[in-house]
Amino acid sequence: MHILIIGAAGMVGRKLTARLVANGSLGEQSIDKMTLVDVVKPEHPDGFAGIVDAVETDVSLPGEAEKLIAARPDVIFHLAAIVSGEAELDFEKGYRINLDGTRYLFDAIRLANGQDGYKPRVVFTSSIAVVGAPLPLSIPDDFHLTPLTSYGTQKAISELLLADYSRRGFFDGIGIRLPTVCIRPGRPNKAASGFFSNILREPLIGQEAVLPVSEDVRHWHASPRSAVGFLVHAATIDLDRVGSRRSLSMPGVSATVGEEIEALRRVAGEKAVRLIRREPDEMIMKMVAGWAPGFEAKRATELGFTAEKNFDEIIRVHIEDELGGTL
Amino acid sequence: MHILIIGAAGMVGRKLTARLVANGSLGEQSIDKMTLVDVVKPEHPDGFAGIVDAVETDVSLPGEAEKLIAARPDVIFHLAAIVSGEAELDFEKGYRINLDGTRYLFDAIRLANGQDGYKPRVVFTSSIAVVGAPLPLSIPDDFHLTPLTSYGTQKAISELLLADYSRRGFFDGIGIRLPTVCIRPGRPNKAASGFFSNILREPLIGQEAVLPVSEDVRHWHASPRSAVGFLVHAATIDLDRVGSRRSLSMPGVSATVGEEIEALRRVAGEKAVRLIRREPDEMIMKMVAGWAPGFEAKRATELGFTAEKNFDEIIRVHIEDELGGTL
Repeated sequence: MHILIIGAAGMVGRKLTARLVANGSLGEQSIDKMTLVDVVKPEHPDGFAGIVDAVETDVSLPGEAEKLIAARPDVIFHLAAIVSGEAELDFEKGYRINLDGTRYLFDAIRLANGQDGYKPRVVFTSSIAVVGAPLPLSIPDDFHLTPLTSYGTQKAISELLLADYSRRGFFDGIGIRLPTVCIRPGRPNKAASGFFSNILREPLIGQEAVLPVSEDVRHWHASPRSAVGFLVHAATIDLDRVGSRRSLSMPGVSATVGEEIEALRRVAGEKAVRLIRREPDEMIMKMVAGWAPGFEAKRATELGFTAEKNFDEIIRVHIEDELGGTL
Repeated sequence: MHILIIGAAGMVGRKLTARLVANGSLGEQSIDKMTLVDVVKPEHPDGFAGIVDAVETDVSLPGEAEKLIAARPDVIFHLAAIVSGEAELDFEKGYRINLDGTRYLFDAIRLANGQDGYKPRVVFTSSIAVVGAPLPLSIPDDFHLTPLTSYGTQKAISELLLADYSRRGFFDGIGIRLPTVCIRPGRPNKAASGFFSNILREPLIGQEAVLPVSEDVRHWHASPRSAVGFLVHAATIDLDRVGSRRSLSMPGVSATVGEEIEALRRVAGEKAVRLIRREPDEMIMKMVAGWAPGFEAKRATELGFTAEKNFDEIIRVHIEDELGGTL
């Protein structure tokens, strides 16, 4: 089978590639070929016996999507997006990449479907940013989508397109609303949500981290390992069981920053906790106030999607996957 | 004040034009100019002292929206759309007219906003087709949007764009989810929803009409007079009271076909009811089964939008507005 990953050079894309290589198969079928696409050329994965085609392109340029599906990949993971903060700062770029890029891909598949009946599985990464305040503590699956960012709007629109194109039979689409991925590996970045990861990742390796919000801020998290698990499961699940509502809120851990810190204390001790420096940031506090505190994720759980149960587990996954298993 | 109506040649567009001419003003301001736009040239309204610019164009052609807003109209009514059945039959045309056309208009305003601070009121006609089965008997304002037609998808996407462009300050947008307009004046048409009007309109003038569904089908209606009232009210309402959720389900009458017929009996007698011929149509029955039975419309009611209270009233409005006041 041939797998296309658009957005393969990002953190989740690289981990997804590595997982697929490690598994060697998806569902019942072995993987013969992977086409890895991003705006920077994705690296060739180690240890893959099949064909790898690494492509540097921007799917939001007209005509590019047609080329990417010319070889008719069986499964398409569409992860490419610019993040929330950038989509808010650059309105046109956000709509071009996050909406037009998605629509070009969907339309290229639709036209191919009309030509030769091509009908791939399309796994689309949506986001919990599709909901907007006021929000209940545990957001039900049928909560209405009233995004309060351009990014959330672009994701909500893409979900609507995914459902309509799937209903019309152009492809088999499924949308995955990713929780905030925590602990993100790598160095601290400027994303407003970065601190959720920073205050664990840095102290775990003996470095200081900044906490810009109060400890009672509650948010919704899953590990990078779980995020990849969601994508792989979405690629193989029976879509008849999903029905017409094709985008699913994924399971995760609802925790306050205080609970995060308690988990850090249990796993790495008081010494690690003391490395968290409080530096309240009004702007970040204001942004975070509108974010989702948690989801019921009942449908996804019933469909077999799984995530960590608490922050201790999220930290342990990070130690296993990023720190060689020990502190 | 200068008013632009896109979709001015349609039934609601013509009635809106006539109402604005009759009022001579909108809110506190007198109307000096009206630009009337449609794919067929709109007629000049009778009795208007101001300037009328009737334009035959298609707002889904790139560049047309820029021309339409070049004179910076104060209020824009965007009614242009192809109907549900056509959007389902012609996928590309539906997305072009109902989505791209709307986006071109919104983007033209956004760019003008960036140039000179232009910030018109934009009144957009959405539809109850934004919701999809399974549906409760009375759909609350915060019910999730899971449209089951391409038309409903295009309207739901337009609602998301309207909210985001308004949030960003590019214009003052408000979306109006119109109930099925009943009694539509004119001759029977091929719309699947046509029978709701046909079984009243034709018997009221002594002619036969066909009923393709059973009498227990429940649906959501408002008169053409109410539809125009919604639009005029939306153009003048204080948007601070509306908040970030810019699209509103309008009030209306939830009634079964049997209740419609009982109202006809009360207003026009048994003779009229006998003109309804039962001809069950499996395809129409199947389509109608997924339609909205009714809405709470709590927010719209609190904001001062009003409709008829029952079908007797809907029939009386038709007799007054279309039949000169008597049978």
